[in-house]
Amino acid sequence: MSSFDLRMSTLRAAYRAKEITPRKLIAGLLAKAADLNPEFHLFIHLLSETEIAPYLDELEGRDINTLPLYGIPFAIKDNIDLAGIPTTAACPAFAYTPTESATLVAQLIALGAVPIGKTNLDQFATGLNGTRSPYGKCRNSVHPDFPAGGSSAGSSLAVALGVASFALGTDTAGSGRVPAALNNLVGVKGTKGLLSTAGVVPACRTLDCVTYLTATAREASELLALTARPDPHDAYSRGNPQFNDASAFGEVSAFRFGVPSALEFAGCTESPTLFEQARKALEAAGGTAVEIDFAPFAEAARLLYEGPWVAERYSVAGELMEARPDSVLPVIRDVLAKAPGTTAVDAFRAQYRLQALKQVCDAVMGPLDFVLTPSVPRPVTLAELEADPIGPNSLLGYYTNFMNLLDYAAVAVPAGFMVNKLPWGVTVFGRPFTDQYLLSIADRLQRIYGLPVAGGSAPDLTPLPRRAHADRARIVVCGAHMEGLPLNWQLLRRGGRLVERTLSAPRYRLFAIEGTVARPGMTRVADANGSAIEVEVWELPSTELGSFLTGIPAPLGLGKVELSDGRWEAGFICDTFGLEGAREITSFGGWRRWIAGTASLAASGAAAE
Amino acid sequence: MSSFDLRMSTLRAAYRAKEITPRKLIAGLLAKAADLNPEFHLFIHLLSETEIAPYLDELEGRDINTLPLYGIPFAIKDNIDLAGIPTTAACPAFAYTPTESATLVAQLIALGAVPIGKTNLDQFATGLNGTRSPYGKCRNSVHPDFPAGGSSAGSSLAVALGVASFALGTDTAGSGRVPAALNNLVGVKGTKGLLSTAGVVPACRTLDCVTYLTATAREASELLALTARPDPHDAYSRGNPQFNDASAFGEVSAFRFGVPSALEFAGCTESPTLFEQARKALEAAGGTAVEIDFAPFAEAARLLYEGPWVAERYSVAGELMEARPDSVLPVIRDVLAKAPGTTAVDAFRAQYRLQALKQVCDAVMGPLDFVLTPSVPRPVTLAELEADPIGPNSLLGYYTNFMNLLDYAAVAVPAGFMVNKLPWGVTVFGRPFTDQYLLSIADRLQRIYGLPVAGGSAPDLTPLPRRAHADRARIVVCGAHMEGLPLNWQLLRRGGRLVERTLSAPRYRLFAIEGTVARPGMTRVADANGSAIEVEVWELPSTELGSFLTGIPAPLGLGKVELSDGRWEAGFICDTFGLEGAREITSFGGWRRWIAGTASLAASGAAAE
Repeated sequence: MSSFDLRMSTLRAAYRAKEITPRKLIAGLLAKAADLNPEFHLFIHLLSETEIAPYLDELEGRDINTLPLYGIPFAIKDNIDLAGIPTTAACPAFAYTPTESATLVAQLIALGAVPIGKTNLDQFATGLNGTRSPYGKCRNSVHPDFPAGGSSAGSSLAVALGVASFALGTDTAGSGRVPAALNNLVGVKGTKGLLSTAGVVPACRTLDCVTYLTATAREASELLALTARPDPHDAYSRGNPQFNDASAFGEVSAFRFGVPSALEFAGCTESPTLFEQARKALEAAGGTAVEIDFAPFAEAARLLYEGPWVAERYSVAGELMEARPDSVLPVIRDVLAKAPGTTAVDAFRAQYRLQALKQVCDAVMGPLDFVLTPSVPRPVTLAELEADPIGPNSLLGYYTNFMNLLDYAAVAVPAGFMVNKLPWGVTVFGRPFTDQYLLSIADRLQRIYGLPVAGGSAPDLTPLPRRAHADRARIVVCGAHMEGLPLNWQLLRRGGRLVERTLSAPRYRLFAIEGTVARPGMTRVADANGSAIEVEVWELPSTELGSFLTGIPAPLGLGKVELSDGRWEAGFICDTFGLEGAREITSFGGWRRWIAGTASLAASGAAAE
Repeated sequence: MSSFDLRMSTLRAAYRAKEITPRKLIAGLLAKAADLNPEFHLFIHLLSETEIAPYLDELEGRDINTLPLYGIPFAIKDNIDLAGIPTTAACPAFAYTPTESATLVAQLIALGAVPIGKTNLDQFATGLNGTRSPYGKCRNSVHPDFPAGGSSAGSSLAVALGVASFALGTDTAGSGRVPAALNNLVGVKGTKGLLSTAGVVPACRTLDCVTYLTATAREASELLALTARPDPHDAYSRGNPQFNDASAFGEVSAFRFGVPSALEFAGCTESPTLFEQARKALEAAGGTAVEIDFAPFAEAARLLYEGPWVAERYSVAGELMEARPDSVLPVIRDVLAKAPGTTAVDAFRAQYRLQALKQVCDAVMGPLDFVLTPSVPRPVTLAELEADPIGPNSLLGYYTNFMNLLDYAAVAVPAGFMVNKLPWGVTVFGRPFTDQYLLSIADRLQRIYGLPVAGGSAPDLTPLPRRAHADRARIVVCGAHMEGLPLNWQLLRRGGRLVERTLSAPRYRLFAIEGTVARPGMTRVADANGSAIEVEVWELPSTELGSFLTGIPAPLGLGKVELSDGRWEAGFICDTFGLEGAREITSFGGWRRWIAGTASLAASGAAAE
């Protein structure tokens, strides 16, 4: 396989330089895909020239500067609708031809992206290996003895083999992350509901997510930012809070990440070393690893196929399976076999169990920025899957199956290669709506590793410009909100935690403002003629910051405060009028020492009486 | 029945004045309850002197000023555990004696409240009328031909008849709100998960809520504020965001409320007039009524008993019912009969349908502060229930059954009396975590109506001190965030809406601060020597305010701004250093006119070239 670079930034540069046109590029990609298909079986339906023409025609005369995805080729897993092209879900008897594209596909096309074909998958997206398809087994992009991983097998191959810049997969149990891991790709399984699933054949409708498969985290971040929009046609759609906006995406400072105290590698001798490297890379990047108990996550994972959620799959494929058993692959029939015997009582009881596990897992996640795991315990071979179509497949889901049940966001990212050249990867996962933050961590890992990305090119080592933040906000306090002081409960009740005791930049003056209670007014001086003031940095859920602000009386407010190391963080400022007539206490160096002073004054006053 | 006043404030005053002791008060209440029970069947188990002694002993030597509920008597629905006393759920064969109290009961006792007994209910809390109990039918507190309403029948009677200051009910389908409506009480069915349900016999575990039944909204607010705490023993527990804290509880200004465009009164001639009075009262109080389509709410309501959620009830009572059919009332057996035949596929499909309805209903709720409905279409008689135990019961749930399925908070509040003296009431409901806001509306209604509260006393007409706010926050903008200006998208993307164009108080100066883009610095003057500046008030989800703040660069920040009518709202302020060297533009009266001026300057400059 010759080297290529289909990254969006590369294509844009080529289009701008007029080195190539979308029409020409895509004609070449279609030819390449047709050549690859007999061996890799990556496409169920590759668009013909006639079928693709309208999308290319639409780009004529359009401006690359106003279409963010101008001429970017993408592949679509064949359980996601593209108007006028059959959707098969890898089951010919199930196929239908939609008149409209899935919401997300339509969004991408409207942004200028060009669909090139519908990719192969494990039938009904039920599988994690990519061999469960009547359209042929998807072998790995690198090593012929291994599967591509699934169920988004063809989508991962489309990017890994260089026929699309990105591909859409789906991910209910791990179907986007597992093939990403096995083919040197980034796979983002965003927060449930962040990307529309309208026009996607359901696997488990309460859990399904669409996945972006890309060469880099940077591209996945851009795609997510462009398309994470509420969809009235998707009942499970959820609005993206602005703290998860890509404008917050960028460089990562100190963070704490969980690592399972006991890891499952299923006997693999290389994976433990590769994982240790990833952990060390994150520690070297400013992270603190915290060991966590993985048992409740693993127990939640087992509910997905051992519990009533198979009934969701059955609700899609069951009728066909009962009417025409031969139209559904035997292994899928085996997976769904127990669904008809599962009662509503079983379904609710399993949901209670899941909720209990979620409470435990959420408590683990609370103080962490994210958790790091391998993406798979170890790769499995095609021969293993041939011998046992269920066991090795289940093994691949060990670190992925719980994610949607517990409502977490996750990103699979490359993290090295095995001796046999097979790609290997890790997954970072976190609370819902931390997608862009997780992508900033994945981006950081890609830059640390500097591995060749899909197609063999070197990664882009330029750090992204802005500091990332997730669902936690930092706030600099300088008065009664500090630890142990009378208003500190306002932070504690909001789930706040003290992250740093430090000083402001030496550019501030501090005043004691009289009122019902004395309050500190900290104000920056325009010249360099100020002092460093004792402050504390607290971390709160971003969603609680608004009510905290609402409770702050004039003349105080929240703006930006410069710290001694030059960082600017949100923190207390004071409207000018509040300082008039207020007593300056800058010389005390901070509110605590001023209080201590007034207390001792009061005490000495009392003693003098 | 003689008049009485057991409101918490009344009892506290009496305790403080040493007019009575908890021991003496409660001995009287237990005697009164014993007298009432043969007619009203309100208690399944009234505590004996021995059983109640430990709670009274615990109060000896304790300070009323440090125990918020010191000596406040309360009754407990008999599906909620009190340590050492049998929990029956109105099914003797189901009874067990818990060794620990339910979390909420333990919280209340720790705060000084004294449990007096376990109250009668519709068996397994399955019913809305209060007659489905082997411990006797609960007649209405006022009119002997009507039921108390249920399933929290005995709890409502305990408060309405004057043997407890408040009572705990539960509310899955309306079991707290319906008896509140029929007995002149406030019944708050808070947001799911706000009050712990650990130690409560489940009805539908994914939906169950505990209800406070009180004479006044003021008391319900206080109780909710004291006890809404996350509980690690309740998997469905949810943290209370601080914008729903009682410190925000108080007077209500302008608001918009929904009213169903078509109302169901089931032929009642009085209810329409009573409802219209409530609507007019809220309009007179500053509210704007908006007609809404109630059909999706009503459709969601029907899912509760016609859909698979009966399987949740069956998961609790089914085993007993199968083993000993006679131990379960025939009407309950009828309700649960279809549960065993309901499959997991049915359960998931109904959840999909509910999710679709929720999307529609949430869109209706989005721009409203709350919705107003009758609490019941009309009261039903004991004779009607005797003739048909199902139909009239279902009618009572018309305005209540959808609430927990759709995850809304609701408060039932008295709103007049029928000609036959039967109490009548309305319900206000809103988005999750608007509980305290809804209680402020209910409080407002109680003060407007001035109806005698339970026991015959006049209501407390003193407005509560602080302005209420719910899950929406207001923010005063004075520059590029105003409608149509370059940064307005930051508000729109967060779901913001413009609520008011107005002026600041005439105490401000406005500056143009240079930077990448010019930004307005609005600062208050200490003397009266300022101007009124053009501003806009926008409303945002409180949870989005934090990320908005995080994105604001120095020297700007958010503090409090005084408006022309004297209100203070959150809005832009400026750190002093930002004003130095900035150009004062106060004379323009606002940012828009300054921009227009600079634009025309630029235009005239261009013309001069």
